Amino acid sequence: MSSFAETVENTRDTHVVVPPHIPAHQEAVNERDYGFLSKAVEEAYEGVRCGDGGPFGAVVVKDDQIIVRCHNMVLKNMDPTAHAEVTAVREACKKLERYDLSDCEIYASCEPCPMCFGAIHLSKMKV
Amino acid sequence: MSSFAETVENTRDTHVVVPPHIPAHQEAVNERDYGFLSKAVEEAYEGVRCGDGGPFGAVVVKDDQIIVRCHNMVLKNMDPTAHAEVTAVREACKKLERYDLSDCEIYASCEPCPMCFGAIHLSKMKV
Repeated sequence: MSSFAETVENTRDTHVVVPPHIPAHQEAVNERDYGFLSKAVEEAYEGVRCGDGGPFGAVVVKDDQIIVRCHNMVLKNMDPTAHAEVTAVREACKKLERYDLSDCEIYASCEPCPMCFGAIHLSKMKV
Repeated sequence: MSSFAETVENTRDTHVVVPPHIPAHQEAVNERDYGFLSKAVEEAYEGVRCGDGGPFGAVVVKDDQIIVRCHNMVLKNMDPTAHAEVTAVREACKKLERYDLSDCEIYASCEPCPMCFGAIHLSKMKV
């Protein structure tokens, strides 16, 4: 039986798929969003490849530049709070040396869980 | 004008107050709970005294022993996710070298926010 990482890799699709039958979604996910969202998905694959945790990634963007890209680190850090989004919030705060990320945006490979949603809200980031 | 820490210290009450008009609460908070809850409240005061963050504390209990006691570290760590409960989950996992805390309990000085509630849920702890 193949490993989880292999299974994910084998089913990998390099595109972020936006359902064509939802025009509002098509409009919402513009080229800029598409680029950052793709990086978040790349991180999700990277996390599985490394065995760091589940297939989830997130990037934090400031002034149109990615300042941190993170993936789920639950297994690596042995920390159930180390979801991709929480890790990204922490790393961005460390990098910018502040805890207010209101001038940043976050892109995640998956709908955030309640913990991550709370963390993003507390960081004041745009989603 | 007095500092926030002074204000909290001046209004300090060494007792955990359970509203007497809510009999169910009185029953629920037994002597054992009272002891651990008091330690969580002590941590909240300690956090303010140190200037580490807001007035929130939490303790993690295993086999009737406190294994970690933590307070809000948002200011000290410059990390908006470093609430007392999240910090306690992380520290307990580090101490026990695992990410499943289903044999532990958490006591917090305040009703957990959605992020902390999510973190506690993910750690599988009893509340």
